[in-house]
Amino acid sequence: MPRPDLRESHGDRRRRSILATATDVATAEGLEGLSLGRLADEVGMSKSGVAAHFASKEDLQLHAVAAAAEGYEHNVMARGAEPGHARIQAMMEAWIDYIESIPYRGGCFFAATGAEFGARPGAVRDEIAHHTRAWIHALEREIRTAVGLGQFRENCDPRLFGFQLHALVQEANLRRSLLDDAAAFDDARALLASALSDVLVAPNPPGERS
Amino acid sequence: MPRPDLRESHGDRRRRSILATATDVATAEGLEGLSLGRLADEVGMSKSGVAAHFASKEDLQLHAVAAAAEGYEHNVMARGAEPGHARIQAMMEAWIDYIESIPYRGGCFFAATGAEFGARPGAVRDEIAHHTRAWIHALEREIRTAVGLGQFRENCDPRLFGFQLHALVQEANLRRSLLDDAAAFDDARALLASALSDVLVAPNPPGERS
Repeated sequence: MPRPDLRESHGDRRRRSILATATDVATAEGLEGLSLGRLADEVGMSKSGVAAHFASKEDLQLHAVAAAAEGYEHNVMARGAEPGHARIQAMMEAWIDYIESIPYRGGCFFAATGAEFGARPGAVRDEIAHHTRAWIHALEREIRTAVGLGQFRENCDPRLFGFQLHALVQEANLRRSLLDDAAAFDDARALLASALSDVLVAPNPPGERS
Repeated sequence: MPRPDLRESHGDRRRRSILATATDVATAEGLEGLSLGRLADEVGMSKSGVAAHFASKEDLQLHAVAAAAEGYEHNVMARGAEPGHARIQAMMEAWIDYIESIPYRGGCFFAATGAEFGARPGAVRDEIAHHTRAWIHALEREIRTAVGLGQFRENCDPRLFGFQLHALVQEANLRRSLLDDAAAFDDARALLASALSDVLVAPNPPGERS
């Protein structure tokens, strides 16, 4: 068994390259319409060469969702920031920057495929919903932490505030991709700043409470 | 030429029924994937019977967009309400109610097809974008009116406030269709009330200004 690691790593690179193209094509043309032939054309491989990497079309779709999720995880989770207010701000700013700079033709992968699969029950929809929900829950958790730390007002509802923050980025993505509105991400940044200042407890001298 | 009116009206009814089905199927399965054969199965007609009503697939898609836009126009424009604050509130409440009650399998037609066509240049994308933009502009116009009438604070930015209101309904639609979150429209209503109360000028005794 000579050089198994090199062989594997070559296959892994191929597979990663196919999945990067698959996520890009899926944002523009849909994940359901993704065919092995279309993908082979894009990456410059034979159809059977692409097919060898995936057990089925659903397997390809599920791997494309996982690859997109890794991109988000890597770019927007802001684990280095302090819990609570600082981390929410870092997560939101990184998310807005990431989607604004995203190379995918159709903008945010999860917005595009979430709209596409909303009414298509199955494993692919479940995975897209799982990652969307996990991101919303991560935002809600940090909001709860910020309230617990006294950074955000006590009446700040994690569910409603998380809804409001998540909505801003969905709207910016829609305006950029459908309405060609280049200013939409700056609008989202302005509204993020304003939403955060609405819930922030003003810093008080030590010992005092507002 | 006997009974031309009756013949026309029968054809119109058929066409309307085909388009109602087309908008429904499009929200769930996409407007691009809409085929005459699929549509014929759904409405119980022959494929050639359906085809006789439309010059091309693009013609069918454009008519489906127009039919969906008529539904919105009819249900959410709230022309009867007083200009400014009352009309914005009526438009937003009617819009939330309409999308919550919408019979389409995939939720909001313009959210579903807007995500689908963001990266598909052409006449269909232009029409979807046109209607989305027209609705956003109608909201912005009423916000400007409300500021001009002294109902909303002078520093209420019509573009940013319109962005915020539009975002709430996009988010509710996404949460309902992808995350099966039945409470999402009530969340949108709560956030609408809170957003309006943030910009409303408190009523003052006559002659006074805050």
